[in-house]
Amino acid sequence: MFGKVLIANRGEIALRVLRACRELGIRTAVVYSTADADSAAVRLADEAVLIGPAASRRSYLNAAAIVEAARLVGAQAVHPGYGFLSEDADFAEICADNGLTFVGPPPHVMSVLADKSSARALMRRAGLPLPAGSVAPVPTAADAARVAAEVGYPVIVKAAAGGGGRGMTVVHTPADLPRAYARTRAAAQVAFGDDRVYVERYLTGARHVEVQVLCDAHGNGVHLGTRDCSVQRRHQKLVEEAPAPALSAGTLDAIADCALRGALEVGFTGAGTLEFLIDAEERFHFLEINCRIQVEHPVTEMITGIDLVHEQLHVAAGVPLRWRQEDIRPHGVAIECRVNAEDPDRDFAPTPGRLERFVPPGGPFTRVDTHGRPGYLIGPHYDSLLAKVAVWAPDRELALNRLERALDEFDVAGPGVRTTIPFVRRVLDDAGFRKGRYCTGLVDQLLAVPPVAPRRNP
Amino acid sequence: MFGKVLIANRGEIALRVLRACRELGIRTAVVYSTADADSAAVRLADEAVLIGPAASRRSYLNAAAIVEAARLVGAQAVHPGYGFLSEDADFAEICADNGLTFVGPPPHVMSVLADKSSARALMRRAGLPLPAGSVAPVPTAADAARVAAEVGYPVIVKAAAGGGGRGMTVVHTPADLPRAYARTRAAAQVAFGDDRVYVERYLTGARHVEVQVLCDAHGNGVHLGTRDCSVQRRHQKLVEEAPAPALSAGTLDAIADCALRGALEVGFTGAGTLEFLIDAEERFHFLEINCRIQVEHPVTEMITGIDLVHEQLHVAAGVPLRWRQEDIRPHGVAIECRVNAEDPDRDFAPTPGRLERFVPPGGPFTRVDTHGRPGYLIGPHYDSLLAKVAVWAPDRELALNRLERALDEFDVAGPGVRTTIPFVRRVLDDAGFRKGRYCTGLVDQLLAVPPVAPRRNP
Repeated sequence: MFGKVLIANRGEIALRVLRACRELGIRTAVVYSTADADSAAVRLADEAVLIGPAASRRSYLNAAAIVEAARLVGAQAVHPGYGFLSEDADFAEICADNGLTFVGPPPHVMSVLADKSSARALMRRAGLPLPAGSVAPVPTAADAARVAAEVGYPVIVKAAAGGGGRGMTVVHTPADLPRAYARTRAAAQVAFGDDRVYVERYLTGARHVEVQVLCDAHGNGVHLGTRDCSVQRRHQKLVEEAPAPALSAGTLDAIADCALRGALEVGFTGAGTLEFLIDAEERFHFLEINCRIQVEHPVTEMITGIDLVHEQLHVAAGVPLRWRQEDIRPHGVAIECRVNAEDPDRDFAPTPGRLERFVPPGGPFTRVDTHGRPGYLIGPHYDSLLAKVAVWAPDRELALNRLERALDEFDVAGPGVRTTIPFVRRVLDDAGFRKGRYCTGLVDQLLAVPPVAPRRNP
Repeated sequence: MFGKVLIANRGEIALRVLRACRELGIRTAVVYSTADADSAAVRLADEAVLIGPAASRRSYLNAAAIVEAARLVGAQAVHPGYGFLSEDADFAEICADNGLTFVGPPPHVMSVLADKSSARALMRRAGLPLPAGSVAPVPTAADAARVAAEVGYPVIVKAAAGGGGRGMTVVHTPADLPRAYARTRAAAQVAFGDDRVYVERYLTGARHVEVQVLCDAHGNGVHLGTRDCSVQRRHQKLVEEAPAPALSAGTLDAIADCALRGALEVGFTGAGTLEFLIDAEERFHFLEINCRIQVEHPVTEMITGIDLVHEQLHVAAGVPLRWRQEDIRPHGVAIECRVNAEDPDRDFAPTPGRLERFVPPGGPFTRVDTHGRPGYLIGPHYDSLLAKVAVWAPDRELALNRLERALDEFDVAGPGVRTTIPFVRRVLDDAGFRKGRYCTGLVDQLLAVPPVAPRRNP
């Protein structure tokens, strides 16, 4: 195992990786920007290296500074967390060139999977069903119109280099397509330096279900079951649960087997997620594969008892998987919600500010991942994720009650700070959600009706 | 199920019961003393009733005030937590007389079990092995000397009405016996209003292992496996784990079966714990039975997935158990440590004071039960338990690493406030403890040698 790992991230995921390292007896160094000098990970790590100013481009996205930090502290490996450089094949390559183990798949695998278009082509070859649409990028608006006419509206125009819910536009009518096509290309060029886009049938009323896989460097792999992440606002997940509810066991098995087959086929290693859409008839369609730990990984950990970040580190160190598929026996239900510092009443605008009170929930079968603490300054520079609250229970109804209980307890306040907790409570109260029958349209449905008077304890 | 439950306790256990009620859709009312007006349970409960001044005798031990509070809020049941009135058969009787369901066994069962002497006699009849000694109370010092001579020194003189580690004196030589006998009787009279004592062989090098049982009001019962609570200072537990380590599966099964048989035999209902000593040859000896939720119950919850407070409430409401013994499948290892506001360097003297910083650990497989929060005033009136930190892992070594990681994170500070965390770390570092080979003498052994320089992150 590594003697020292550099954590190239911030916020709750830097803390998450730090915990895993410490539990495995690995020394930790964490990089940080000037904005994060007082963060939990910096406070707890064995070493911390300032790599630049608040702007991510000059700190958390600064590959050279991160590699230099690793050299400085004598780390043998770099854990990228999620976001930032976690899916950047070039960064993985630079790490390798500098004798550092990048905790993730080999650069050539990352490279082919980071391009959604080539990932789709590969997965189709591996036998995974795709949504109807173009496999190769569509070079002109006229090509896009032709594909759209073929598959039928609505369609979604997606950046080949996109990911994490960014670089996508839904188009409902042929008249809207040319502008959407042009806009998505332009936005993709700005965001990813790559303006290739492709066109897919957009499935309405579908569910977003993903499969967690874990593959070692010796050709072994297991899946750790499904997660439902259909509760999304603008393609950003708000509530996630494992396993995906209200689906037949046959479908759950088929999608999980299919995902694992796809991952093994492309030579994937480490912890990865294959995302699918499932339509009302339980037909599933491959969307994309994420080559990193996901924000929502705790729910899978809670139903399997497996620490995914430990396993990432084991795999990166060359250790063979210690399970066969039949050893993985998920039990119970885990549900997580993200607590973002955003105002649900003002279109989820970020609410930076200093936390005056911050008492997260605790008690039975309740897990909180957060870098927040009293006095913590939520800055304007990074995403607004403040905490993840996850619970486990033997059945879904109890898990929902437990999550509501946990959210009731969460005491977070500061001048100007608002959180998404009130909105998450509306999701948990929704009759369809409670039955496990919900799809990616749920959040928009809820936002279309004003909230009733907020429920409070009397 | 009950519509409303009165929680007749304070601190972390009041919060624990509140969480269970809320998850089951039960409304909560909590009693409190003037010292606890600002406590977490008071803040979170649906209703709170002030029942008296800080002195427990006039608040948390004031049966009349508690019953009046229940009447006032219209509660149907009273949950007593642990300590205070939780094992007081008279209080259970008063509840019944006032039409309130006491969450615990029937008063006549409590009454016979609260008397350790009659509990021993009953359990002997049920076939449980007892430590050598007197079954009936010994009325004179001469009788005590006779029993001690018979069973051999060291012996332990125990108050029949004692419990929770109070009212016991270990005696190593015949010369010390008369004084110890007299002193224990006098102390028992003051503490419990009952000066009967009995004499047992004191097992040195033994382990304290207990079995969690759960019995309904319909004659059904299951055990939920063992806990090792040998890490004790003056009979107060500091670190607890489930299952008990380094014992043969045969012994673990035998002790658990034996405990369940004893509980069913005496008509026990609800959640109870049978405590045993196990000697180096793995022979076990029944010590006492506790008729309430234990401080250390979280470790059992973590290995079984069963919420014991939910089950207490179900049983009290007359619901039959939903498991047969074969449905209970403990997995993994859970370890808990108590974080007391005490100074390990000054003989564990309580350190009251106001918490300035209070950031408990979080993250994977980590559970914290605490009523602490920034600004909380640790008063001098009650026990010094501030938090329980419990972790789960698939194996014991990882659980130990995880607990150390969690304790590393725990940031608690305030003028004058010290905690037992540094001492717990010494326990976790002990070579014998790490191997699972430790006995009730461990704490004294550690206290006999000065600590080495405290381990800190560099």
